[in-house]
Amino acid sequence: MEVYEVLHMNGGIGEASYASNSSVQKKVIIMTKPIREQAIVDLYNSGNNPTTLCIADLGCSSGPNTLLVVSELMEMVHITCKKLAHRTPEFQVYLNDLPGNDFNTIFKSLPGFLKEMRKQMGLGFGPCFVTGVPGSFYDRLFPANSLHFVHSSYSLMWLSQVPAGLESSNKGNIYIGSNSPPSVLKAYHEQFQKDFMLFLKCRSVELVTGGRMVLTILGRKSDDPTSRDGCYIWELMAMALNEMVAEGLIEEERMDSFNIPQYTPSPAEVKSEVQKEGSFSIDGLEVSTVPWSACRNYEYYPSDEYFTDIGHDVAMCMRSVAEPLLSNHFGRGIIEEVFQRYKEIVSDRMAKEKTEFFNVTISMTRN
Amino acid sequence: MEVYEVLHMNGGIGEASYASNSSVQKKVIIMTKPIREQAIVDLYNSGNNPTTLCIADLGCSSGPNTLLVVSELMEMVHITCKKLAHRTPEFQVYLNDLPGNDFNTIFKSLPGFLKEMRKQMGLGFGPCFVTGVPGSFYDRLFPANSLHFVHSSYSLMWLSQVPAGLESSNKGNIYIGSNSPPSVLKAYHEQFQKDFMLFLKCRSVELVTGGRMVLTILGRKSDDPTSRDGCYIWELMAMALNEMVAEGLIEEERMDSFNIPQYTPSPAEVKSEVQKEGSFSIDGLEVSTVPWSACRNYEYYPSDEYFTDIGHDVAMCMRSVAEPLLSNHFGRGIIEEVFQRYKEIVSDRMAKEKTEFFNVTISMTRN
Repeated sequence: MEVYEVLHMNGGIGEASYASNSSVQKKVIIMTKPIREQAIVDLYNSGNNPTTLCIADLGCSSGPNTLLVVSELMEMVHITCKKLAHRTPEFQVYLNDLPGNDFNTIFKSLPGFLKEMRKQMGLGFGPCFVTGVPGSFYDRLFPANSLHFVHSSYSLMWLSQVPAGLESSNKGNIYIGSNSPPSVLKAYHEQFQKDFMLFLKCRSVELVTGGRMVLTILGRKSDDPTSRDGCYIWELMAMALNEMVAEGLIEEERMDSFNIPQYTPSPAEVKSEVQKEGSFSIDGLEVSTVPWSACRNYEYYPSDEYFTDIGHDVAMCMRSVAEPLLSNHFGRGIIEEVFQRYKEIVSDRMAKEKTEFFNVTISMTRN
Repeated sequence: MEVYEVLHMNGGIGEASYASNSSVQKKVIIMTKPIREQAIVDLYNSGNNPTTLCIADLGCSSGPNTLLVVSELMEMVHITCKKLAHRTPEFQVYLNDLPGNDFNTIFKSLPGFLKEMRKQMGLGFGPCFVTGVPGSFYDRLFPANSLHFVHSSYSLMWLSQVPAGLESSNKGNIYIGSNSPPSVLKAYHEQFQKDFMLFLKCRSVELVTGGRMVLTILGRKSDDPTSRDGCYIWELMAMALNEMVAEGLIEEERMDSFNIPQYTPSPAEVKSEVQKEGSFSIDGLEVSTVPWSACRNYEYYPSDEYFTDIGHDVAMCMRSVAEPLLSNHFGRGIIEEVFQRYKEIVSDRMAKEKTEFFNVTISMTRN
């Protein structure tokens, strides 16, 4: 099976859904707001005031974060237009994700969302047209010269495929691990380069001249791809799986042939591809961190009083993201057990160590 | 509950799904192909050759018909361009339906659909970008001047709401019936006029000058709104419900307060609204018929040998369309029984009478 056929966040709104376990992704979106604000205000101040402003969110998922960025962008444009005494444009919003994403849940929430937007923004706002765009962002998704603003958060670390030829060489790991051989590091890095280059080429066709793009990628700060920055969360999942291999609950060959189609790049690696591709100028590039404890799910445990186990929420967050990949490879039967063990391992480490996700955010203008 | 929150074809691909019971709608799409062909070829011959051709199908539903029209339109454009030695444009396809439509099932079928299109069309085709647009076509759905071709088949007979004030006056009926009082006829007709006018106004903003629109509406031939043409299929459903009222299985007040948000217009009524609105010139207007027996579901009963009961397929077709409305009003409990009785009534009538659906098709150009 191809990655695009398997990879999707857990759908619906249940306990293991992405919708119920995406508070760390929300936190990152809130943290990076000033970068988007700068980009969209610059877009307007540069004289780019189309009648219809076309915004795309790539890897929109399905849950409380899906409409967060686009609503915030529309608000910023509305406020900027008011200041400049411009008429607020019509908004064309494209929500993109892979075809397996739960678009139905997003779409059912739209009438309420739009009603609330109109109420909050008041007179002179809109209209706003929201559409769903199913497909891989490693391919063309939009007509040429049709977008003014592209955003993506916590999506571009997903590769289009597991790098070829890893199976026999990455034993005991499911991603780059501290003991992965150089060939594995090279294969992962090359897949990232190939995919990210393709992404940039596609977007360069679709964005108008002067259009902006802000991308936040789960990455690392260190230049060393085996540093804990980007690997640790998966190393702990490999530990849980390896325990089950040792106990005969998972076949060793199954474990050896499983690798996550993800790459957590450094800022230098991101910058390097953008410069090589050549269509964009970089307005900003920064690394931020968010503690694993930001996975804390206040929806399910609203009061601190009853809350004991942050490891549970981190494990649920990772489950909502990785379950389709794991159950496609190992079968549904192991899921509960893997995440039970993972939860315990994560809890133990969080009690002893500083555990953080690293975010690489890049802001660009289409030349 | 609002109509747009309830009305949707049965989702999924199961026995009672719209996807498995939409052969009559398919037949109508095939019958009306020459009208669309003329319109799209005229669009091209009039010198309207955009780099990106934007096509919208309004009320696309979810099933084998969803991509039928758009694939046929793209094929026609591709062939026309080849003849004229033009480069085939990029295609932006908008699939619209209410937010309750099963877009997930459509989206999952897209990678296969696009692969097949590319294979069939050969070199020089595409790219083709397919997006989902959830919302009511009685409201703006697209940016101003963004569409070149609008199509809708078997959707515009659905009203935005049940006409106000029917409850007490349409006893024993669920739509216009032969014994409905003039006030009911007036209420239905006025709701159609209001809705269709709004539809035309919205589309007139969205279509470019010279853009085309082809609409097929389940309607009637006769000027008399109580004629069998457009009412009979619902009258028989009312008979099934009335039987159940008589047997105490449905409360009489429940029955009296149920009315279908649909209007089956005559060609004169359609023409009148288009002329009143004034943005479109009419290129063609015609009525066609399709027998109820076109509901025959060859997917489920591929061989005639085992086929005995056409009433079953007509009832399943109507169930896939009306079940959400009925179960929202009467509760899920009555559904099996209603459609069992309906099937028997329909079978009986089809054996004795000529039973047909009437289709009003109008082809227009945006002035």
